[in-house]
Amino acid sequence: MDLINVKEALEIVLTHSQNFGIEEVDFLNASGRVLRERIFADRDFPPFDRVSMDGIAISSEAFNNGQRTFKIEGIQAAGSPQLTLQNSKNCIEAMTGAVLPKNTDAVIQYELLTIENGTANVNLEAVKSFQNIHLKGTDKKQGDLLINENTLISPAEIGIFATVGKTTVKVAKQPKVMVVSTGNELVEVGEIPADHQIRRSNVFTLVSLLEKLQIKAETLHVLDDKKVLLTKIDSLFNNYDVLIFSGAVSKGKFDFIPEVLDQLGVKKLFHEVKQRPGKPFWFGKKVYTERSRSEKTIFAFPGNPVSTFVNCLKYFYPWQYKSVGLNFENKQQAILSEDFYFKPELTYFLQVKLNQVEGKLMATPISGKGSGDLANLADADAFLELPDNRSNFIKGEVFPVIIYRQ
Amino acid sequence: MDLINVKEALEIVLTHSQNFGIEEVDFLNASGRVLRERIFADRDFPPFDRVSMDGIAISSEAFNNGQRTFKIEGIQAAGSPQLTLQNSKNCIEAMTGAVLPKNTDAVIQYELLTIENGTANVNLEAVKSFQNIHLKGTDKKQGDLLINENTLISPAEIGIFATVGKTTVKVAKQPKVMVVSTGNELVEVGEIPADHQIRRSNVFTLVSLLEKLQIKAETLHVLDDKKVLLTKIDSLFNNYDVLIFSGAVSKGKFDFIPEVLDQLGVKKLFHEVKQRPGKPFWFGKKVYTERSRSEKTIFAFPGNPVSTFVNCLKYFYPWQYKSVGLNFENKQQAILSEDFYFKPELTYFLQVKLNQVEGKLMATPISGKGSGDLANLADADAFLELPDNRSNFIKGEVFPVIIYRQ
Repeated sequence: MDLINVKEALEIVLTHSQNFGIEEVDFLNASGRVLRERIFADRDFPPFDRVSMDGIAISSEAFNNGQRTFKIEGIQAAGSPQLTLQNSKNCIEAMTGAVLPKNTDAVIQYELLTIENGTANVNLEAVKSFQNIHLKGTDKKQGDLLINENTLISPAEIGIFATVGKTTVKVAKQPKVMVVSTGNELVEVGEIPADHQIRRSNVFTLVSLLEKLQIKAETLHVLDDKKVLLTKIDSLFNNYDVLIFSGAVSKGKFDFIPEVLDQLGVKKLFHEVKQRPGKPFWFGKKVYTERSRSEKTIFAFPGNPVSTFVNCLKYFYPWQYKSVGLNFENKQQAILSEDFYFKPELTYFLQVKLNQVEGKLMATPISGKGSGDLANLADADAFLELPDNRSNFIKGEVFPVIIYRQ
Repeated sequence: MDLINVKEALEIVLTHSQNFGIEEVDFLNASGRVLRERIFADRDFPPFDRVSMDGIAISSEAFNNGQRTFKIEGIQAAGSPQLTLQNSKNCIEAMTGAVLPKNTDAVIQYELLTIENGTANVNLEAVKSFQNIHLKGTDKKQGDLLINENTLISPAEIGIFATVGKTTVKVAKQPKVMVVSTGNELVEVGEIPADHQIRRSNVFTLVSLLEKLQIKAETLHVLDDKKVLLTKIDSLFNNYDVLIFSGAVSKGKFDFIPEVLDQLGVKKLFHEVKQRPGKPFWFGKKVYTERSRSEKTIFAFPGNPVSTFVNCLKYFYPWQYKSVGLNFENKQQAILSEDFYFKPELTYFLQVKLNQVEGKLMATPISGKGSGDLANLADADAFLELPDNRSNFIKGEVFPVIIYRQ
């Protein structure tokens, strides 16, 4: 049987994205979430003709009639109701952010004035109508769309929510995710492993990767025992939308995950992808006949650290983006900075260090010892995705890149 | 008096970065923090000669003597103590992640075998010593440096902490930050503003920007009253390391911040920078004669939304990076995608939309209505930093860029 390639695998994964609904959160907690409503201007912006320099507000007609000295009638502070210039030959001091006083149409900044005995003398040749005034509604009109649905919320959007009075906002609900490790060789982080053991690490890497997507995942360890796996996994379906496994998906005698999932009625959508690392990736879905129960999605990643890491970025991330409604496609590319050779007919996720030179993103391969080399992840920034139909990759060529570090 | 330029301002800000010490946190909560210890390999990696394919482990000598049929003595599972091959003409089934059995030196994967009646028949021309074996210590030796001090912790580092048994890690302590808004025109987000009022928004944008740096800032609103400001700000010095203001730093009658800070013994390091937006930025430091009290740093940003936003990114972010020991300089650049004209002798932070084309980062100006236009922040991704000594900026030129959205 021909293995599927990376593109086909990703398409299948994306086809099985899932909408987890909508929830309302405090606007200040919405950063990193995906907006599921449209945000409109609740009034014009600016909401009034707004003074944009500290100085005096005058009638430009008076100025144009030759007048250069203006008696000060009062002060228009930001936050005070609009004053009215009583005599069109006078002026009102006006502060940045204040409403432009009635009967005035220009502001002259303090830098161009001298004030003496309650009178401002203007040292200026010409005054334009509405100078230093940010006119009502020039930025946005009441009812204008400010932020579209399905936007990833950043600090800029938080400020806009505040501006229009959205104390809570509707965002996409996150899936409930359980990250499961298997493997009898694993001990807890706080333990001293025996010679033949290693510590659990992949589940924590995954939790941390999911945290970047604002998903608070839980973790569980299950021994390599078919009966135990059957019982434990079955019970997880009651409480989680997504199960992510790390390990036990290859050809080993104790790689029970595919078999156990099959027995639990999970439909395999693919197993093994033409890629390195991460080839034995297994992906499936559990669909219930009861309409009340929602589907469950299962990502079973190979157990070595780099395989788990790259597969989470390459498959789970886009699945999650699509699930929460984010119109996101990773179009980032980088330029290979030296020749590279990789023979097998597999997409190769090459660990690279990135640096930006004059707006160009350069990718330099770091030497690795294969998919097990977790420590290399700390030395690299990204995976350069080299296609499976060639062996020679030439300096200067451009390839897709998956960046995991800023 | 000549204003200082952006480069000089940034240098002064960075000179006044501050070390807030070290704290120990749970390794799983360390993402986004800056590591303040070095992480070493606690053992060799791999810690044993590790089987890297599921199959049989043999003595390559037997194979090279012409033998192609191997009786199976047992199974070496991952997580089991090392077995010993009793008869060098036999084999042991060995699983990925397992210790290589004693007296064997090659693993042949299941794909190249047939197993019948407890005997493996190998369909293979040649076997190399140590094939499909990840030898002890090839990735890292015990005592090797895995992660250097002053590294920004990402999911890759979290996995390494787990691997070497670091349940807690030392990270740079964060400053305690209070974000203060002033301005009598401001009402709370949940209120309906009168015609001459607007809602508080900058403080929330700032809180959200600081959250990205893993700083949980608090907020406070103070009315434009000199006496109230004096009392409130003075009390803040007891509990916070950094005060960030938004507004009241310009030339207006109620712009009391510089004066009040002066009266409170804060030393002004600069006021006003040759830039747009964000020119009236005020920066200062309060130093105590008592050695027990630590210095306080004050960033007083201009009150309009885009000024506050860009100044936080341009000045506070690098200050914070340096304060926590991160060796970070924003070297990102982007390529201007169309001609642009800006006359004043000021550094111009141009709002741009980014897109990446074949590894090149292109910046397209979005039309704005000046520094007050918060809504534009939602349409842009970054600020392109155009130097102050020119007016014409040509398509294809490369400029520094401050990116605030992925």
